[in-house]
Amino acid sequence: MADPRFFDNCGPLSLAEIAKLSGATIAFDSGVPVRDVAPLDQAGAGQIGFCDNTKMRSALLVSGASAFIITRDLADAAPQAASRLISDRPSFAFAKVANALYPDASLTWRRDEPPLLPIHPTAKVGAGTTLGLGVQIGAGVEIGRDCIIGANTVIGRGVQIGHNAFIGAHVSISHTLVGDRVYIHAGSRIGQDGFGYIGSAAGHYRIPQLGRVILQDGVEIGANTCIDRGALADTVIGEGTKIDNLVQIGHNTRVGRHCVMAAEVGLSGSIELGDFVVLGGQVGVADHIKIGSGVQVAAKAGVTGNLAGGQVYGGFPAKPVGQWRREMGAISLFAKGKLRGNVSSGGKD
Amino acid sequence: MADPRFFDNCGPLSLAEIAKLSGATIAFDSGVPVRDVAPLDQAGAGQIGFCDNTKMRSALLVSGASAFIITRDLADAAPQAASRLISDRPSFAFAKVANALYPDASLTWRRDEPPLLPIHPTAKVGAGTTLGLGVQIGAGVEIGRDCIIGANTVIGRGVQIGHNAFIGAHVSISHTLVGDRVYIHAGSRIGQDGFGYIGSAAGHYRIPQLGRVILQDGVEIGANTCIDRGALADTVIGEGTKIDNLVQIGHNTRVGRHCVMAAEVGLSGSIELGDFVVLGGQVGVADHIKIGSGVQVAAKAGVTGNLAGGQVYGGFPAKPVGQWRREMGAISLFAKGKLRGNVSSGGKD
Amino acid sequence: MADPRFFDNCGPLSLAEIAKLSGATIAFDSGVPVRDVAPLDQAGAGQIGFCDNTKMRSALLVSGASAFIITRDLADAAPQAASRLISDRPSFAFAKVANALYPDASLTWRRDEPPLLPIHPTAKVGAGTTLGLGVQIGAGVEIGRDCIIGANTVIGRGVQIGHNAFIGAHVSISHTLVGDRVYIHAGSRIGQDGFGYIGSAAGHYRIPQLGRVILQDGVEIGANTCIDRGALADTVIGEGTKIDNLVQIGHNTRVGRHCVMAAEVGLSGSIELGDFVVLGGQVGVADHIKIGSGVQVAAKAGVTGNLAGGQVYGGFPAKPVGQWRREMGAISLFAKGKLRGNVSSGGKD
Repeated sequence: MADPRFFDNCGPLSLAEIAKLSGATIAFDSGVPVRDVAPLDQAGAGQIGFCDNTKMRSALLVSGASAFIITRDLADAAPQAASRLISDRPSFAFAKVANALYPDASLTWRRDEPPLLPIHPTAKVGAGTTLGLGVQIGAGVEIGRDCIIGANTVIGRGVQIGHNAFIGAHVSISHTLVGDRVYIHAGSRIGQDGFGYIGSAAGHYRIPQLGRVILQDGVEIGANTCIDRGALADTVIGEGTKIDNLVQIGHNTRVGRHCVMAAEVGLSGSIELGDFVVLGGQVGVADHIKIGSGVQVAAKAGVTGNLAGGQVYGGFPAKPVGQWRREMGAISLFAKGKLRGNVSSGGKD
Repeated sequence: MADPRFFDNCGPLSLAEIAKLSGATIAFDSGVPVRDVAPLDQAGAGQIGFCDNTKMRSALLVSGASAFIITRDLADAAPQAASRLISDRPSFAFAKVANALYPDASLTWRRDEPPLLPIHPTAKVGAGTTLGLGVQIGAGVEIGRDCIIGANTVIGRGVQIGHNAFIGAHVSISHTLVGDRVYIHAGSRIGQDGFGYIGSAAGHYRIPQLGRVILQDGVEIGANTCIDRGALADTVIGEGTKIDNLVQIGHNTRVGRHCVMAAEVGLSGSIELGDFVVLGGQVGVADHIKIGSGVQVAAKAGVTGNLAGGQVYGGFPAKPVGQWRREMGAISLFAKGKLRGNVSSGGKD
Repeated sequence: MADPRFFDNCGPLSLAEIAKLSGATIAFDSGVPVRDVAPLDQAGAGQIGFCDNTKMRSALLVSGASAFIITRDLADAAPQAASRLISDRPSFAFAKVANALYPDASLTWRRDEPPLLPIHPTAKVGAGTTLGLGVQIGAGVEIGRDCIIGANTVIGRGVQIGHNAFIGAHVSISHTLVGDRVYIHAGSRIGQDGFGYIGSAAGHYRIPQLGRVILQDGVEIGANTCIDRGALADTVIGEGTKIDNLVQIGHNTRVGRHCVMAAEVGLSGSIELGDFVVLGGQVGVADHIKIGSGVQVAAKAGVTGNLAGGQVYGGFPAKPVGQWRREMGAISLFAKGKLRGNVSSGGKD
């Protein structure tokens, strides 16, 4: 799964090794070694998935994974030819396997190849591209023609950048594929670890982040904005989308084409935005929300449910803007004691 | 208009060139070449302005511009000796002209003079000023006496800094004039492009940002704060104003003297703040708002209308703080069902 | 008080010098020179404290300070063997003394020893630790074993870092003690000045920030997050706490163990969080608030009062989440005119 341009796989692991490091119990060992982790619905040969949710029993039944970490009550639902491990907390065990396979996922260079030169000998830089002083470019990076890379910017191993990019000073980019005509202003952080942990009474266990960031053609990003890479999937910013300063975009979020986000917007993880979505300043969106194309959200709104396309929303929780304004107006009138006639009735209660 | 210390003008352009690049149609060509863009009310000889708003007909009539891009219904309102181009979208055509005149507006060095040395030979650094390692100082920069410039900080071409400045590590400054006794903490971004686009069904077109940032004497700025330069005007932070971390200040905003902004405040564009204004943490202010001197705005408020000076406001939309508190209290009591007597009436009303 | 690894003390000062620089009047001079500033309840021999609050009269009476700056009405309450200065604004006078004792508190190197080499000869770096290119490490810094320090990161004088740290690119750290297994992602700012001023009609006077930041074992910090050091006390992040991107943590705030803060959270100063506190995205917390262990605060909430442990809160001002949801629901129903029965009375209208 994990893009080898950015991640080094330390597998394979035997089922015995997995049992030992994860604390899971072997129910059946097919003998097939585990080379990778994958989501249940995308897993194939040599890959391990997990399931801790009886509602996903049917997905488990048809998964192509070679091995599964499951709760005891799902033991019968995994394909019987596949290896199976039983765990009280399959997600935790799975994260431990992922960490064992990719112990260096946070690194922006190969573990044993820290940069010795600012521009790695294997990096390719296109004609007409200007590099500011102090720029660092990692192994295997490819940068297209006629780009500007600002002073002290650091581009991690394997990053691909198209033509005519403008990148400001002090930017860091890793684990990322960048299209043509992309602007990234000073101090933005693209591709670092997403914020993923599994909690327990002993603390929070880091889930390795094995996805990428993809910035499509014409994307523009302000200063000091952060876009985290995905956990198993990618974080994607669609073509032509413009993002202002100090915006947060969490892992696995997929933004459509030609969206606009004003400053200090916060998108948590696994959000889906359609095309031409406009988010006002300081808008926040909860995780796993879907926002339809053409939606506009007024500044400072908090989006806690899916929003149908083509409409304007505001408030917290976000609702159609007309409704929100009526509610704000009603509160004001009510507090002034002027709404009596509207709210009283002649009946009994 | 654009300060030549920061921007290189590629003009002049003939009216035929402008028509071709902007898609506008020539109604009259006076033969005077266009060397610059300007706001309608500030434009003079050799400059082009635009007007797409019939309410600005009178401003158009008295504008000193040598050329105009206007909608057809305003064709008669432009001074008849001036060149005139007709466009369905004058603002879009104007932005294209601005981009043609200043194609490198985002750059922090001259297109053909990328820095070869960390300290440009033409830069002047005053006595007693200490530069951290990795500092980069561009062409024509002037820094006064007894300043501290932190490690890896990058100062773009033409920036002027007064005496006794303290600038932290990893700061980027461009297109900016800085007074005396200014503090800028680590990672702040001063002077990058404002967030200005003209939308269309085909996407969003970048408006070149041709103004500056001006930080007056005694301004202090926290860490990772962003202050964008103006579009045609300047972004100004008045004397003695103190700004905390992670604050966003949009283009063309003018902040008065001795204001205080707590962390994560967001000011969008073209806002005017008086003197001694205090904004609590996470306050947001919509564009083109005016806030009077001495105003205090409670944390998290959202300012959507002008605020008269000398008062305290809170809530979203921001209102006098007493009113806001009454409304919050009324909601709580109402939801508990304890407000019946207050809102109902037995009599007439 | 101030940790000499980070701060150089320019004392001692005679009472006459203090009177001159602060504008305070000497009421009694014991002859003991003042070498340091301290909070009233922690001050000892050679230290000066201040009191401007008659409610703190009893604390003043038992303070061990050698000198006091107090208002006239508290003149009799200070220990009579100690030096006493009278001021209309003791806090302002005290800040001036602090600035005189620590004029270089904002610096990340010794005034007369700006770094000449990226790695200071007195710095110690443990076995197995990898430094990215462009890393700067100040005098007296100690870094443990098997750490990764990202490209261009700057570590100020005296900083101590444990083992197995992962620090991203472009990070700045000063005035900070860091435990083992700490992650700090790209562009975060740790240890810069807190946001402390004393206001007056003439403007705002900077209070020197003489505390530290302490990041305990297992703390993880996202990208472009800011944690300010304390004023006289320390800012502390407890063991295992995980903090997302673009978070602000103000001076003197103490966060417990295994807390989680989502992106764009803003904690102002002198807050106390218990253990296992969870703050959703864009939550703001006012200064001097106490939040009990196990509290969860929903995204976008604004915490303006202390929160008892073990409960879930939401809204602004933050309240128990059930109450908040009822209020939000009541507003919606009310604005639709559907709540008559609930709020009306039996009369006619």
